[in-house]
Amino acid sequence: MTLDPVLSQIDSDLDASLERLKDLLRIPSISTDPAYKAECDRAADWLVEDLRSLGADASKRETPGHPMVVGHIDGPGPHLLFYGHYDVQPVDPLDLWDNDPFDPQIEETPKGKVLRGRGTSDDKGQLMTFVEACRAWKAVHGTLPCKITFFFEGEEESGSPSLIPFLKENADELKSDIALICDTGLFDSRVPAITTMLRGLLGEEVTIIGPNKDLHSGMFGGAAMNPIRVLTRIIAALHDESGRVTVPGFYDGVPELPDELMTQWEQLGFDYKAFLGDVGLSDLAGEAGRSALEMLWSRPTCEVNGIGGGYQGDGFKTVLPSKASAKISFRLVGTQDPHAIRKTFREMVEAMVPRDCTVAFKEHGASPASVMSIDNPAFEKAREALSDEWPDEAAFIGSGGSIPVAGYFQTLLGTESMLIGFGKDDDQLHSPNEKYDIESFHKGTRSWARILHNLSV
Amino acid sequence: MTLDPVLSQIDSDLDASLERLKDLLRIPSISTDPAYKAECDRAADWLVEDLRSLGADASKRETPGHPMVVGHIDGPGPHLLFYGHYDVQPVDPLDLWDNDPFDPQIEETPKGKVLRGRGTSDDKGQLMTFVEACRAWKAVHGTLPCKITFFFEGEEESGSPSLIPFLKENADELKSDIALICDTGLFDSRVPAITTMLRGLLGEEVTIIGPNKDLHSGMFGGAAMNPIRVLTRIIAALHDESGRVTVPGFYDGVPELPDELMTQWEQLGFDYKAFLGDVGLSDLAGEAGRSALEMLWSRPTCEVNGIGGGYQGDGFKTVLPSKASAKISFRLVGTQDPHAIRKTFREMVEAMVPRDCTVAFKEHGASPASVMSIDNPAFEKAREALSDEWPDEAAFIGSGGSIPVAGYFQTLLGTESMLIGFGKDDDQLHSPNEKYDIESFHKGTRSWARILHNLSV
Repeated sequence: MTLDPVLSQIDSDLDASLERLKDLLRIPSISTDPAYKAECDRAADWLVEDLRSLGADASKRETPGHPMVVGHIDGPGPHLLFYGHYDVQPVDPLDLWDNDPFDPQIEETPKGKVLRGRGTSDDKGQLMTFVEACRAWKAVHGTLPCKITFFFEGEEESGSPSLIPFLKENADELKSDIALICDTGLFDSRVPAITTMLRGLLGEEVTIIGPNKDLHSGMFGGAAMNPIRVLTRIIAALHDESGRVTVPGFYDGVPELPDELMTQWEQLGFDYKAFLGDVGLSDLAGEAGRSALEMLWSRPTCEVNGIGGGYQGDGFKTVLPSKASAKISFRLVGTQDPHAIRKTFREMVEAMVPRDCTVAFKEHGASPASVMSIDNPAFEKAREALSDEWPDEAAFIGSGGSIPVAGYFQTLLGTESMLIGFGKDDDQLHSPNEKYDIESFHKGTRSWARILHNLSV
Repeated sequence: MTLDPVLSQIDSDLDASLERLKDLLRIPSISTDPAYKAECDRAADWLVEDLRSLGADASKRETPGHPMVVGHIDGPGPHLLFYGHYDVQPVDPLDLWDNDPFDPQIEETPKGKVLRGRGTSDDKGQLMTFVEACRAWKAVHGTLPCKITFFFEGEEESGSPSLIPFLKENADELKSDIALICDTGLFDSRVPAITTMLRGLLGEEVTIIGPNKDLHSGMFGGAAMNPIRVLTRIIAALHDESGRVTVPGFYDGVPELPDELMTQWEQLGFDYKAFLGDVGLSDLAGEAGRSALEMLWSRPTCEVNGIGGGYQGDGFKTVLPSKASAKISFRLVGTQDPHAIRKTFREMVEAMVPRDCTVAFKEHGASPASVMSIDNPAFEKAREALSDEWPDEAAFIGSGGSIPVAGYFQTLLGTESMLIGFGKDDDQLHSPNEKYDIESFHKGTRSWARILHNLSV
């Protein structure tokens, strides 16, 4: 089956494919907020319908959380498992959005046309690049070059509580020759990338409870323990002066970067000044003596993602709060054990809590880092397909983000994953005014058409 | 004019006087939140009407903020300026209230009857004890034993921005022989008190700004500076291991307690274990080696009243926030200079902000401590009146709270203040389920009737 007419079909169908994507983006499928449960359901239904329009045997699969979507289309080539997620991040602070995050609009920008809205890049836009590539193959050839199993999750942005049980229960249906995961980015506008190194993620919520009620800071201040003081002391102790994380045993299993990879990364000529400059920063804030790409791809981190306690409204309230809490996440690399780190982290925190306070912990996911073995010939076939579509050669890179599903496919299905995506550093994932370049969507769809072709021969 | 029939009148009018108080409490006059501006106005109107019903020449005085209420009633004795405030604290967290904070109810408790609701004790309930005492005098004798000027403020819980200019503009109208301020408490249920030592208050809001937008902590974490990390480091540095505040020069002007006062306070037999035990605590959290009453009355403090940054909703969001902020207050004693401390505090913070972050400060009031001179014979007359009403002798005590108006009366009107109030430690000021004991209200009203009598002879 020839590739060129498929690429032409993608070009001529671009506007219609963008309209389909906008339909999906209008559904506010925020998985972490229970208030949006019905919307997540609606997004799953939308995808089931769309897969059926491709002739897929598709269905919505209930879970204790948000539903999964699974669809099958038979084909001659190898069996590919395609993964994407239809849920999105919350949109607060809403006042920082220039437009309604769920009313996606195409905008002209100095860097070209973009589609702006929550989920455009993470991950609905990326997910649809693959679906549209299949649609084009189907339209031109009436069939697909490979056997495809579509697998869409609705809990990726909220710790994927149902993923492991679902994979275990449906392993036979889902295991494939190779998995394709579209939730990563290009190295830059010229250099496409296959991500072979992903950081793991450990999420912890820490709540320090002091007095049994909010107190008047004039009446009790100075004599009663203030939980904010305890919490800030703990957080301040999580990093040392050199930027290293102080949790005992944290660096166990953190490997040094292999020389050849170090060299390859240096050749990428990553401009960290420009990378930070885009977001108004100029200095690397990580461990002293590490390169920017190490900090972002191959070194572990500890970040506070949220903190709150006491009065945060307008004006001032002289309250001594009953409690204060923080959401803390660790990015993990190599063979760092999230469960061992959770244990030592909690022990470290407990040791810093005075007798008059108690601490409550809440788990928010624990996934190890994953490093792909690129021996599978599919990696080289995909790399060539990407290099044909984009200006420069594709690179094997790392990613600071965490995509636990790759590790689960490996351990639970025995299926290796290729992480290929078309996002850009300025897509503002998880932030106000998230966008996805039309170029990412268009060339991304063409890239998948080429990859399907290369994998089928 | 005889006192006893006035006391009987107060007793027989108790239920009616409680209904009047409930009327005032139903108005949600939260001064710090602009959303409640009209309600503050409504509370002022209510007071003007009530003073007029006593025959006072009363009026609402507009200010750039919430209005003041001023009323005059002539009389034979000395000229007394009575101060109270009609504004209240916000009510969040609302879910911790057992009832609607603005639908006050009388409750039976193991310690006796209480009136529960926002403002019952701070300060509407206390303010009305004086008004009701005047009402009883008027009802019995048709006139008051002293010349009274009522002065009610509506911005006490939000830094009193209009107070100083108003006092300057209306000094001639307001200056009196002595001021009576009803915004403090009893020492305990048996021992009434005149507060002669008040801590000052310095309020600062600190906002640390890092990246120009919220970032994905996977994409940028480890390389980009996190403002929460900077803010928590600063807050953790505000106290040393011994609990002392580390702001340079902070202890300049902090006096040691005079021996005689130290002795008198020791004789009060303050049970700090019970005081802290009521709120679920057991250990003194202040400077090592200081007594509980010193920590609460005569030592300065630094407390964080609120902190916020990043994602605080349900679930988890791997965001690296653009900014984080904290509301910090200092309780001041002796001759500590709030403006000098604000300056050194800001310098200390600025020195801890890395190059990639900026800091923004917002002022929330700056008032020095005030120490009353008790030479004025009115103090002894009032002490005797209180001792007649309550089981034990009245005491001269300190207070951890800040009542800047006493200092302003001194400097701007040349009028000394007597701080007399009937609140109890378990009134839950500024907290959910605030209450005022019926005993406080009833015996408080009787106490004022006695004080007016003693001051008139």
